[in-house]
Amino acid sequence: MKKLGKQTVTLPSRPVFTATAAVVGKKEGEGPLKECFDHISEDSYFGQSSWEKAEIHMLRYCYQLACGKAKIPCTELDYILSGDLLNQCISSAFAMKECAVPYFGLYGACSTMAESLALGAMLIDGGFAEHICAMTGSHFCTAERQYRFPLEYGGQRPPTAQWTVTGAGAAILGSSGSGARISHVTAGKIVDAGINDANSMGSAMAPAAYDTLKAHFEDTGRDFDYYDAVFTGDLGALGHDILESLFRKDGIKTGAKYMDCGVLMYDLATQNVFSGGSGCGCSASVLCGHIIPAMERGVWKRVLFAATGALMSTTSAQQGDSIPGICHAVAIEMG
Amino acid sequence: MKKLGKQTVTLPSRPVFTATAAVVGKKEGEGPLKECFDHISEDSYFGQSSWEKAEIHMLRYCYQLACGKAKIPCTELDYILSGDLLNQCISSAFAMKECAVPYFGLYGACSTMAESLALGAMLIDGGFAEHICAMTGSHFCTAERQYRFPLEYGGQRPPTAQWTVTGAGAAILGSSGSGARISHVTAGKIVDAGINDANSMGSAMAPAAYDTLKAHFEDTGRDFDYYDAVFTGDLGALGHDILESLFRKDGIKTGAKYMDCGVLMYDLATQNVFSGGSGCGCSASVLCGHIIPAMERGVWKRVLFAATGALMSTTSAQQGDSIPGICHAVAIEMG
Repeated sequence: MKKLGKQTVTLPSRPVFTATAAVVGKKEGEGPLKECFDHISEDSYFGQSSWEKAEIHMLRYCYQLACGKAKIPCTELDYILSGDLLNQCISSAFAMKECAVPYFGLYGACSTMAESLALGAMLIDGGFAEHICAMTGSHFCTAERQYRFPLEYGGQRPPTAQWTVTGAGAAILGSSGSGARISHVTAGKIVDAGINDANSMGSAMAPAAYDTLKAHFEDTGRDFDYYDAVFTGDLGALGHDILESLFRKDGIKTGAKYMDCGVLMYDLATQNVFSGGSGCGCSASVLCGHIIPAMERGVWKRVLFAATGALMSTTSAQQGDSIPGICHAVAIEMG
Repeated sequence: MKKLGKQTVTLPSRPVFTATAAVVGKKEGEGPLKECFDHISEDSYFGQSSWEKAEIHMLRYCYQLACGKAKIPCTELDYILSGDLLNQCISSAFAMKECAVPYFGLYGACSTMAESLALGAMLIDGGFAEHICAMTGSHFCTAERQYRFPLEYGGQRPPTAQWTVTGAGAAILGSSGSGARISHVTAGKIVDAGINDANSMGSAMAPAAYDTLKAHFEDTGRDFDYYDAVFTGDLGALGHDILESLFRKDGIKTGAKYMDCGVLMYDLATQNVFSGGSGCGCSASVLCGHIIPAMERGVWKRVLFAATGALMSTTSAQQGDSIPGICHAVAIEMG
C-alpha cells in the first residue's frame, strides 16, 4: 500500500510533467502572467460561432499544443482525464471527441486540474499508462450566462465576487523522463462550511483548502517550510485571506510562499475582477503556463498545488442549499 | 505495464466486489427485477421536499446500505468515485458531503457506473486504496425537468425514447476477499456517429458500445463465447438491436447472452417506457441489484459489463450538435 496517513498517497515512480500548455483570453493576456501563456486569443469567440464552441476550440487547441510540445501524436496517449464547468461537461467531451483516446470525464468544478492530475498520476504509477493528459478549462462568457445572467444584462457584482477565467491548461504526464514530478496526492473530502452566497465562493472553498492542506501536512510530516511555494486553486483575495486566518488560529504562518492562482491571474487593482479569478481554467492555466515552467527554470524545487472547487449548481442555489467545497492537493518536486 | 493491446488493462490483484446495494423507485420496483433491489420507494420524493433532494437522499441511502453490507463504517473508505446526470453533479456531491471520505467527482453520463468501477479498481490494484465506493444514480423527475419538459406539461415521446430510471447503485470494491472480481478494464473513446435526435439515445450510444466491445475483444483475445453474459448499459431495445446488427456485419452473433440493462429493467410490453430504461441509475442498479448478486449465486461466472453514456447537454442540443457517445467496459469474473 502506498497510503501515507489517512488521506495521502505516495507515488514511488513520481510521474513526470512531460509537457504543459496554456491558452487564455484577452483579459487574462493583459494580466501579470501575460508572458507565460502559449496563446492569447484576442477574440472571445476564438473564431467560432458560439461561446460554447469557443470553449471547445480553446480546450482542443490547448491539448494539441501540449501533445506537440511532448512530441507525442494526439492519438497516442493512454488516457485523457478532463472536465469543465458547463452542464454535462460538454466542452471537454466535444473538444476530445475526435482524438480517439480513452477518455475519463471528471467533475470537480474548479478543482478539476488537481483532480485530473491526481487520478492521472495514480494511473501511471499503478502501471496502467505511460502517458496521460490532465486538462480543463473555462470561459467567462459561457460560465456567466449559464450560472448568472445574460452578458447583455450587465448584472452588478459585490466585491467578494470572482471573475471566471477564460483559459485552459493541459498537462501531459509521463512514466519516465526528468523535470517536475508528482510525488504525493492528497485527495480532498467535501467540506460544507454553510456558506450560501454564490458571490462569495472564496469563503465557501477556503475551509476545504484548509482541510486538505492540513491533512497533507499531517500525513506527510511536511509543513509550509518544506515547500518553496504553495498554491491554492482559485480562492481569490478573500478566500486567500480566510485560509491564512484559519492557519493563523493553529499558530501557523503561511507567509509569502502561499499564493492563490485567482490572485496571480489578474492585476486586482486595475482589471476590475473584484476578488480575483475563478473557474477551472484559472488554476489550470496558471499551473501549466506559469508554475511548471517556472519550476523547470529553477525558480522553485518543491511546490504544493491545491486546486479548489465549489460543488454547487444554479438549482442547488435556488433551492437554498449551501455551497460544498472540495480541494485536491498534488505535491510536485523537481528531480 | 499492465496494458493489454491498445485500450485494455489487466488488474493482476483482481479487486473484489465486497458488497453492492441498489435502491429504486416505484416503477422500477414493479418491473421484472423487483425482487433484486434492497429498497423500493413508493414515494417519488423519498420523503424529501424536492426531487433533487430525493435523488440526493436515494444516493446517500444506497451508499449507507452498501457500507452496512460490507461491514465498513461509512467514513472508513479510502475513496468515493461518483457522478450523476444533474447539472454540476450536485446529487453525488450533496449525498456524499457528510461522509468525510476523499471524493472524486466523475461525469460519464450513463456510463458512470462503469467509469467509477474502472477508476476505483485501478486505484486499488495500483496500491492506493483498500476499499473504494463506486456509485451513481438518476431520478426520472429531476432528469425530465432538467433535460426535457416540466412534468406537468406531459410532453409526447416517440417510440425511440427511453425512460430515465429512478434508481441508484453502490458497489464497495476491496483489495482482498472472494467473490466477483474485476479482471480487466477497457476504457472507452468518445464516438460520435452524427446522431442528433435526443429522443434516440440508443442510436447515439450503440456505436460507442460497439467500439469498446470490439477493442476489448481484440485486446484480450476473448469473444462473446468467453463470457457467460455481456451487458450494455442502457441502449434500450433500439440500441440493443443496432449493436447486434453492427456485430452481425462483422459476422459475429451476439446471441441471447447479450443483454441490455435498459431492456432488463422494465417490462417493455406493459410499462410504457418506450425503448426501455436509461439514466446513470439504470446500469448501476441492475449491476448492483441483479448482476453481481446473480454471479455470487452461481448464475454466471464471467460477465462483461459495458455501461454507455451520451455526452450531450440541452445547450449542445439547442446549438444543433450531434450526440457523442462513450462506453467503458469492465470484465467481472468469479474467483
